[in-house]
Amino acid sequence: MFAFHLDDTDTNSAARVGRWETPHGVVETPAFMPVGTRGTVKGLWPSQLREIGAQMILGNTYHLALRPGENVVKELGGLHAFMEWDGPILTDSGGFQVFSLGDLRKLTEEGVSFKSHIDGSVLELTPERAMQIQEDLGADCIMCLDVCPPADAPTEPMREAVDRTTRWAQRCRDAHQREDQALFGIVQGGIDPQMRERSALGLLPLDFPGYAVGGLSVGEKPVDMYETLTHTTPFLPVHKPRYLMGVGRPIDIIEAVLRGIDLFDCVMPTRNARNATAFTSQGPIKMRNLKHQLDTSPLDPDCDCPCCTQFSRGYLRHLCTVGEMLGGILLSVHNLAYYQKLVRDLREAIKSNSAQEFRRDHLARTATKP
Amino acid sequence: MFAFHLDDTDTNSAARVGRWETPHGVVETPAFMPVGTRGTVKGLWPSQLREIGAQMILGNTYHLALRPGENVVKELGGLHAFMEWDGPILTDSGGFQVFSLGDLRKLTEEGVSFKSHIDGSVLELTPERAMQIQEDLGADCIMCLDVCPPADAPTEPMREAVDRTTRWAQRCRDAHQREDQALFGIVQGGIDPQMRERSALGLLPLDFPGYAVGGLSVGEKPVDMYETLTHTTPFLPVHKPRYLMGVGRPIDIIEAVLRGIDLFDCVMPTRNARNATAFTSQGPIKMRNLKHQLDTSPLDPDCDCPCCTQFSRGYLRHLCTVGEMLGGILLSVHNLAYYQKLVRDLREAIKSNSAQEFRRDHLARTATKP
Repeated sequence: MFAFHLDDTDTNSAARVGRWETPHGVVETPAFMPVGTRGTVKGLWPSQLREIGAQMILGNTYHLALRPGENVVKELGGLHAFMEWDGPILTDSGGFQVFSLGDLRKLTEEGVSFKSHIDGSVLELTPERAMQIQEDLGADCIMCLDVCPPADAPTEPMREAVDRTTRWAQRCRDAHQREDQALFGIVQGGIDPQMRERSALGLLPLDFPGYAVGGLSVGEKPVDMYETLTHTTPFLPVHKPRYLMGVGRPIDIIEAVLRGIDLFDCVMPTRNARNATAFTSQGPIKMRNLKHQLDTSPLDPDCDCPCCTQFSRGYLRHLCTVGEMLGGILLSVHNLAYYQKLVRDLREAIKSNSAQEFRRDHLARTATKP
Repeated sequence: MFAFHLDDTDTNSAARVGRWETPHGVVETPAFMPVGTRGTVKGLWPSQLREIGAQMILGNTYHLALRPGENVVKELGGLHAFMEWDGPILTDSGGFQVFSLGDLRKLTEEGVSFKSHIDGSVLELTPERAMQIQEDLGADCIMCLDVCPPADAPTEPMREAVDRTTRWAQRCRDAHQREDQALFGIVQGGIDPQMRERSALGLLPLDFPGYAVGGLSVGEKPVDMYETLTHTTPFLPVHKPRYLMGVGRPIDIIEAVLRGIDLFDCVMPTRNARNATAFTSQGPIKMRNLKHQLDTSPLDPDCDCPCCTQFSRGYLRHLCTVGEMLGGILLSVHNLAYYQKLVRDLREAIKSNSAQEFRRDHLARTATKP
């Protein structure tokens, strides 16, 4: 049900092109998943996500379990019916948000208890509960509950986090029942190559249908993230999908693809859009800048998204300046279309063994520093 | 260029069905115009406005003159090109917002000066300037600058406001040059029938291609508004469109149509949507109510809009409860579709001489008090 077909590998890097079968359709990889935190990709209709080429989207277990509650989503037919998205969906375990948003009360071998950031109520998340919630939500791909230490945690606490993540992965696998869901293990270990190796080797015997790399893009330098991926992906099975959680900038995605990552998610395209920043083929643009005021040209001349084919920079600048919601909507559609084009172009580049050239060209065009 | 064809009149009321020709298309009346205050109907793409049957939309001169400035809109090709709406557009004169939002500095025979609600800068609006701004914005239908007294103004100030509105209308007509724009006069006079008559009779010699009724729905009782319309519309030319500014609730539109009004605009469908209130065939619904939590039925079973054909009440309730922007967007689309269906149904009812029955049926179904 979750076959991953490796169709092409780049001869000059670890990049690969694949097709991943899920109960709600095939995902061509590398793929970028727009983030629908609370059951909606902010400001977009599902039909608009399809229109810009989104294949698979992400929902956040922590947020959905708090509101409306996984039981409500289940009663309403599961996440696909709930949000009227019939393509593949992935949910995270909730662990990351518990460690970053929740007021952490207690972390034990059993699980984590935390105070909700909404109403302060105390909740507990265990591996078994993370499975039950995600089974009720009903995504195609779900995540093990992991321990998310700070990126700069010392070796000993990091080792404890890694080993507990492995033990929790075992419990998740034992608890998980739905055969129409792929459960991924999550490799932790910060930016310490030995810890990453330890985490990966601990998870491999559990034979998950795919592996995620967690604990990156949490404040470390980009080069440290890239180095970590260089050390980590070789330990992961070649014929299973690899998912880099919560990453990132366009250049981060390119660098990670070159190191063998297949799946991505990040709030950046939609969050930056609501803050009036657009990703374009010539690099990022701040849309509130006065220089766009009288500009009748499209946001990105190289883009054929519904925003760029209809509206002028001058109009977008006006919407963003006065704070009209349509500004955030139009830029979200464009930014997500930009990310979809990025992974689509990456797939083509890998097929023609030119992923390294694609990276160089991207750096030159966008004047991005890696 | 602005021919108004009266196709049908109700035998049991003053209601009428017409077709109004404009440079950007024909408007079937009675018609409801969604409000695009700052060059956007909040949260909607122009394609979505077309999809739900909107024929003509409204822009606010006051807001657009402040930001981005009418010169910017003109440079970007005029309001149609600016907001990518190729149907008819109407702009108001800015007077209403000056009197209600601006910090009024001075009202003289020459014009009004006011402090912008944005940055406090002092601006002046005269009949001539109102014409220049609206010519630069480039709508199909524009409004004379009028004096907007409080609804409860005593007779003498009300008479002064009415007479000054008439003198300003003359100056507007003299200043206005674009032949591809229809300039409407505005009848003022509060809820005093004699003042309304005085205002209408003062404007008629100026032979405007259409007339607006202003100064209503500003706090007076609904019955007083209806009574005022009963007294006012008979003074207006039969073969020209009549526009009731800023009105209103569904029942207000029905009552006004029965009294011979053809055009409407109101922020209510979109503003209420953002406050999680939906108009439905069974009356208004507060979407945050807990009773909708597990409801898989559509918002309005009698509606075929993109919101009602796709999403459940339970999902809408979730979006509205957590404050997701998609909640306001979906309800805005539905509420505007509801208003479009209302005027469409009214047109059919008038053609079959059953407008009075339509009103009674609406009151019964929605349990609205008139």
